[in-house]
This record gives sequence, C-alpha cells and structure tokens, in this order.
Amino acid sequence: MNKSELIHQIKSIGSFLCVGLDSDINKIPKHLLQEENPILAFNKQIIDATKNYCVAYKINTAFYEAMGYSGWKTMEETLAYIPKNKLTIADAKRGDIGNTSNMYAKAFFETIPFDAITLAPYMGKDSLSPFFEYQNKWGIILALTSNPGSADFEQQTVNHQKLFEHVIETFSQVGTSENTMFVVGATKPEELGKIRKMVPDYFFLVPGVGAQGGSLSDVCNYGLNNEIGLLINASRSIIYASSSDDFAEKAAIESAAMANEMKEILKVKGII
Amino acid sequence: MNKSELIHQIKSIGSFLCVGLDSDINKIPKHLLQEENPILAFNKQIIDATKNYCVAYKINTAFYEAMGYSGWKTMEETLAYIPKNKLTIADAKRGDIGNTSNMYAKAFFETIPFDAITLAPYMGKDSLSPFFEYQNKWGIILALTSNPGSADFEQQTVNHQKLFEHVIETFSQVGTSENTMFVVGATKPEELGKIRKMVPDYFFLVPGVGAQGGSLSDVCNYGLNNEIGLLINASRSIIYASSSDDFAEKAAIESAAMANEMKEILKVKGII
Repeated sequence: MNKSELIHQIKSIGSFLCVGLDSDINKIPKHLLQEENPILAFNKQIIDATKNYCVAYKINTAFYEAMGYSGWKTMEETLAYIPKNKLTIADAKRGDIGNTSNMYAKAFFETIPFDAITLAPYMGKDSLSPFFEYQNKWGIILALTSNPGSADFEQQTVNHQKLFEHVIETFSQVGTSENTMFVVGATKPEELGKIRKMVPDYFFLVPGVGAQGGSLSDVCNYGLNNEIGLLINASRSIIYASSSDDFAEKAAIESAAMANEMKEILKVKGII
Repeated sequence: MNKSELIHQIKSIGSFLCVGLDSDINKIPKHLLQEENPILAFNKQIIDATKNYCVAYKINTAFYEAMGYSGWKTMEETLAYIPKNKLTIADAKRGDIGNTSNMYAKAFFETIPFDAITLAPYMGKDSLSPFFEYQNKWGIILALTSNPGSADFEQQTVNHQKLFEHVIETFSQVGTSENTMFVVGATKPEELGKIRKMVPDYFFLVPGVGAQGGSLSDVCNYGLNNEIGLLINASRSIIYASSSDDFAEKAAIESAAMANEMKEILKVKGII
C-alpha cells in the first residue's frame, strides 16, 4: 500500500487507528481454548469486530514466535485474513548487516507479504537499506519509544542533538516519506511536536495510547499534519477489553470510540 | 551452558570458534535440493563436519524466517541436532518493550531452547532485562558491529564516550559476565583492545573474521583475556567453503584450520 492509498483509506473512514494483535494464549478468553487454533480464532474475531474502525493492523512477532513454528504459521494465517484495504505491519524490530537484512526483507515483504515492518536503527544506514528497495513497502524505524529505557540511549545527546533526532535526520536522507515512517511514542507528546517540525511529511507510528497512558488528543495536537501523518496504535486496550465471551463486542466498542474521537479531530482540523 | 562450562569446553578442544549457520537455499550445493529438507540436510552435514573444531553454533534467524514457518521449523530441528556440549546462539538481534521482550525470551530460551540470543540495545535497559532473568542463559548485546554503518550511530560521541562504549557501560551494570556478552566486530581490533580494558571479564562474540576481512591474530592480540573471553564467529567462509559434493569436507578443513590457529595462540599465551 502506498502513501496516497493510505491517506485515502484514512479519509474514507475517518480513522487512523492501528490495532495491535499482541495475542497471548494466556490472556485470550478461556472459551477459545477449545478451538483447534485458539489464537487464530481470537484474531479472526478481533479483526471482524474492528475492521470498520481501523486502517491498519500490527502483528507483534514476539507473541507468535513464543509459540514456535506453529505460531509463525498462525502469524501467516492471520495476515491472510486481514482485509486487503488495511495496512499490515510486522512489528518485528529487525536490523542486521546488509546480507542478513536482505533475508529479513524477503521474509516480511515476500514470503509473508506484509506492507510494512518495524526496524531497529542501531547498526546504521546500510543495515536497513535492503528494506527500502521494495516498491509500495514501508520501513518503520524506531526513533523515540514509549518505554522508560528510551532515556538510556535514544534521549542522549549526540552532536548537539538527541540520538533519536540523529536517527530521524539520518534515515530521512535515506528513505522518503513514501517508504519510511518513524516510531514515536505517545508518552512524550511535546517531543512529537519537535519531530513533526523536523520531518513534516512523514507518517509516525505512535504506540503508547491506551495501556501505556498516552493521550490521543495530545498526540494529535502535536503530531497531525495536513495529510494526517499519524497511525495511532492500540493493542491491549482493544483486544483485551473483555476477557469473556463478549471480547469481540467490547473490542468493537473500544476501537469505535477511538475512531470516533479521531473523526471529530479530523473534522475540527478541516482534514475531512 | 554457564561460563565455567563454556571455558571448560574451549580448553578441552583448544578452540573458541563459533560456526554460523547462515544457510541459504540459493547457496547450498545443488545436489542437496533433491533432499526432503535441503537446508536441514545441509546443516546436519555441516554440524557433523565441524563439531570437533568449534565450541558454539550460531543460527541466523533471518535465513530461516525467509522460508516462512517451515523455515522456523527447520531452525528448531537444526537446534535439536546440535550436540549438547556446544553453546547455541540465536542470532536474532531482538529487543522491545518489556512486555514484548518477555515473549522473545520465552521464544528463544524456552520454546526453542537456545543457550544465548543476540540483542539490539537501542530501546534501553528495560527492553532487555527480561532476557537476564533466566539461569544459565546469555544475552549477547550489539556493541560495535563490523559493518560500515557502525559509524552512523555506534561510533558517535555521547557524553564524552562513544555510543557503543555507553552501551557496554550501561549493560555491564545490568548483567554480569556470567549472563552477558557483547558483539564486537573483528574489523576494528584496536577498539576491541579498548573494550577489553572496560570489561575485562566479559566474553565477546566477534563476527567479521573471514568473509568480512578481519584478522584472527589481531583479534586475539587485542581481545583475549586469561579465561579466553572470545567467541570468534565464521559463517560463509566455512559453510560455503565449497559449493560441490565436498562442501562438508571443505567446511571441516576450514574450521580445523581456524581451530588449529586458535590452539596455537592459546598455547603461546599459556592458557592451555
């Protein structure tokens, strides 16, 4: 999915919500454990319940890898079930020397055909460049994350700027706003405003609204641009909104509430 | 495998070689393509041919993920075939918020029971701490890598030290030399010497000898300590030493040559 298609999808439903499928066998409703593949059954019901309210799904690879190769198969089956008009993100945080990143790009853009993958920047430009050789695919680079450990390295000063700013500056010279996004946590909205000034045209994937405590309106105030420029992810607050038989219904209610709030904001800003 | 067992294994065969199983369907000998599982057949023959000359095997997850879930299964089957007296490393370069890193630790320490995993430090201390809660398991943290892109961030100055030095200092206060190693590339042996002074007791996993051009004797001069403290990885130079029927024999010759050079160095230094 390219940038203009993504913007079109967002405007058509008035939502820039991304639903994170961090599906954990220990957290899904107990009645699903009798299914042949409980995680796949859970994901399908979550997707059916939320697809009218979101433009993207993010599959957190860790939760599938924890189940071994059968989990990897469930990830493939989940991806295949997601409607084609949704942006699909492998939240995999990969990155390695070029020879190896070529194989990761093949894994997540060809073998398992996601639209986008999250990437870890530590090893530098050449470690991520293989991901930017694909048409209509996205590399989403970790910049400023929502966890306390973002203070350890990301927020340290390098050459008169923060490391996360140096990462953004570096990769905005490698990729373009047509194939590159940045991860910017919702828990630091003022920093989001500064980053928006650095890279006005880029989309940001924003975790941390919901379970981690970030505010949707703060994120929009600081981060929206006139092509939206935001994908706001929520995982646990939607998929585990209820642990009972009504989990899908409650997931629909939670995602609809976020989508409605987004639509109001887009209307107020005159974007839709 | 704990540190004293690793040192015992190294001393018993006089080798601190790690063989990297970066097994690629497009590079293995053509006659193996008739096997039911060509990559598994290749790996088994490489392991049989090299096991007398190495103390560790490193499985590069990217090469298996590129094959989808069947590749993930091949990774599990390969791990099961490695002799129990070898250190097994998932070269996976994972790292995420704690909730997610818990799942990666479960994936690579429990579901697929590797001894060690490589980790990306960008997201800070709390992103890797779940990996250090396991007994007799190792987190191997990226510090100074062997690729050109190491100049982009790793070698930038943060608070009067290089970022990779800050990473090492930070994580040497989190883990211990009993559960933490650092990745230090062979292509910068003088930096290796400085790092050895910073963390005298830690093991380093050293890529870049062989295909990437690093020198074994330089690495040993700068990096050895009196408990060895080095695992030197070679992948392509061993597993693709020949592309014909004699690939396993040639892999044995290549790994034996490296192991012999290592044994001589350990003797000269009086370590064995």
